Amino acid sequence: MAEIQVGLGERGYPIHIEQGCLARVGEQLASRKFAKRYAVITDDRVEVLYGRQLMRQLAVAGIEADLFAFPCGEASKNLATIGALASRLASAGFDRKDGLIALGGGVVGDITGFLAAIYMRGIPFVQVPTTLLAQVDSSVGGKTGVDIPEGKNLIGAFYQPKAVHIDPEILATLPRAELLGGLAEVIKYGVIRDRAFFTFLEERREQILALEAAAMNHTILTCCRIKAEVIEQDEREGGLRRILNFGHTIGHAVEAASSFAISHGHAVAIGMVAAARIAVAKEMLSRDAEQRITALIAAYGLPVAIPADLDRELIRIYLKTDKKVVAGKVFYILPTAIGATCITDEVSDRQLNQVL
Amino acid sequence: MAEIQVGLGERGYPIHIEQGCLARVGEQLASRKFAKRYAVITDDRVEVLYGRQLMRQLAVAGIEADLFAFPCGEASKNLATIGALASRLASAGFDRKDGLIALGGGVVGDITGFLAAIYMRGIPFVQVPTTLLAQVDSSVGGKTGVDIPEGKNLIGAFYQPKAVHIDPEILATLPRAELLGGLAEVIKYGVIRDRAFFTFLEERREQILALEAAAMNHTILTCCRIKAEVIEQDEREGGLRRILNFGHTIGHAVEAASSFAISHGHAVAIGMVAAARIAVAKEMLSRDAEQRITALIAAYGLPVAIPADLDRELIRIYLKTDKKVVAGKVFYILPTAIGATCITDEVSDRQLNQVL
Repeated sequence: MAEIQVGLGERGYPIHIEQGCLARVGEQLASRKFAKRYAVITDDRVEVLYGRQLMRQLAVAGIEADLFAFPCGEASKNLATIGALASRLASAGFDRKDGLIALGGGVVGDITGFLAAIYMRGIPFVQVPTTLLAQVDSSVGGKTGVDIPEGKNLIGAFYQPKAVHIDPEILATLPRAELLGGLAEVIKYGVIRDRAFFTFLEERREQILALEAAAMNHTILTCCRIKAEVIEQDEREGGLRRILNFGHTIGHAVEAASSFAISHGHAVAIGMVAAARIAVAKEMLSRDAEQRITALIAAYGLPVAIPADLDRELIRIYLKTDKKVVAGKVFYILPTAIGATCITDEVSDRQLNQVL
Repeated sequence: MAEIQVGLGERGYPIHIEQGCLARVGEQLASRKFAKRYAVITDDRVEVLYGRQLMRQLAVAGIEADLFAFPCGEASKNLATIGALASRLASAGFDRKDGLIALGGGVVGDITGFLAAIYMRGIPFVQVPTTLLAQVDSSVGGKTGVDIPEGKNLIGAFYQPKAVHIDPEILATLPRAELLGGLAEVIKYGVIRDRAFFTFLEERREQILALEAAAMNHTILTCCRIKAEVIEQDEREGGLRRILNFGHTIGHAVEAASSFAISHGHAVAIGMVAAARIAVAKEMLSRDAEQRITALIAAYGLPVAIPADLDRELIRIYLKTDKKVVAGKVFYILPTAIGATCITDEVSDRQLNQVL
């Protein structure tokens, strides 16, 4: 078992990473006493896979709990779901001393964290991420929120969990496409911050894709360690934290322009390659490094080019309405080497057009 | 002009209190630069009274601004309004460097503050309260939120404004009933924290009801000073801040049991008298002090008894589902003298029944 402490003072918390720990979340929570009782928030798919099992465990550990599920998918990530869940909490008599458990992927974590942030102006919550994307990225760091018709995550809060419990074994039941989507974020950490980890991802590809325990533990641990280090220095994304958006500037625009037919993970993969190419055009990155990045992404079965039939003009429009646009400027996170990045708004239309 | 600083470190902010200052909000904001541009959030009644005037001033001061109004009244205080306003902000291209101005009473302040707390995970906002209730209470302290069908303010955030601009002159256009509602909260401050202020309210009743400048300035300043002192010691209502709920435990239940036919201010007045009577029954407060409290509330034209036709059982039910109930216990804020209070959950059903 590995444990990382996210050092944010009174908002700090531990990340447990342990094969099979999903079966022990109940006893672990029983000893921590974050809340008097819990509501497990999940989607209807994860409810069947792990929800009932978690409820039994909580009962065995003597923890009172309810389970509230909503329909699986990004379409649920809106204020209506938040309102409906808040009503269910209130009807069941949940008060300020009670807590939430987010059991699921990124959507469940974003919804549950935001609900915890605003129900009675804030109650405790725990993350139990069940997808690779959530385990290495969205469950750590306190970014929570929902979508509005005008854009993704436009409403939300920075709100840290009390603990994150990660069971890598759970990934065996994850659809292959979702696993690959998570691996795009894994590769991101290597590119932006850790050259040795990038090499590890090149060398242990087969073991990682086979979900071998040692390789997965090291992968998840490294990603969480990097994310914790970044967040400790910049919790609210005023500066450094923006490097975690590597691949996401063009990625989000590609995702939106495809009306979300292209998955988040695929879009980030495409966005990382595009950013690397812009960095080469700006003579900030060597062509060798760019080719190594592109090759690794392709080796994990992820796309490296924007589909030919996707409307370029639409991508440009979405780029300009991204949440990360500040004072009308589009910011790009560009690699300067494998393991290092810079943040810049100096990308000319010509440089952008070359990669589009 | 008077100015109070709310000492909350990096979340601290000034409260300006000045006759006629509504006409100078534009120039005051121009010198502070909290945001690149603003959205004035208001209701359709205040829009006509002061919204257009504020927009002209902002234009003269060189501040870019939009105005978004929603229908006046508590019925607007819900997640649907938040979602609609967020969509309007996003469509108008508002980003993280832009800010909001809450122009209106308590409902406008609660909605705008909550919207500022969660739009793009938090943008700056300024309070310009236009009712006495908002000027002496809800605009200061960072409590924001909306209602859900199960109860008032069950969703929200603690989120402090960047500044509060209070113009007592504005109260001349306030309907008499709303003025009296605000005075219930004014009396609250005297009872819980300031004996000299209580005496001032007894002696200067005529000047206050006539909205005489010197008396109103002193009244608003004193209330804001007390509220700032309390919040500085307990921003998130873990302890001391709960004294600000004096009159609100039974008050909220009365308000809800009447289906909000009884106004908030009237309900708080009734709740304060009920709390004082419970304090007498528990031998914590002298009968003389209770009579002085009741007499002052009556002297300002506020009710002192629960209407005979209001369902007592319904009041009991609402008491037990209040947001302030913790671990199943109903907490009461009881006066122990004029200017002093205690917080207790030791009120027996018999003591409660006596006042109901």
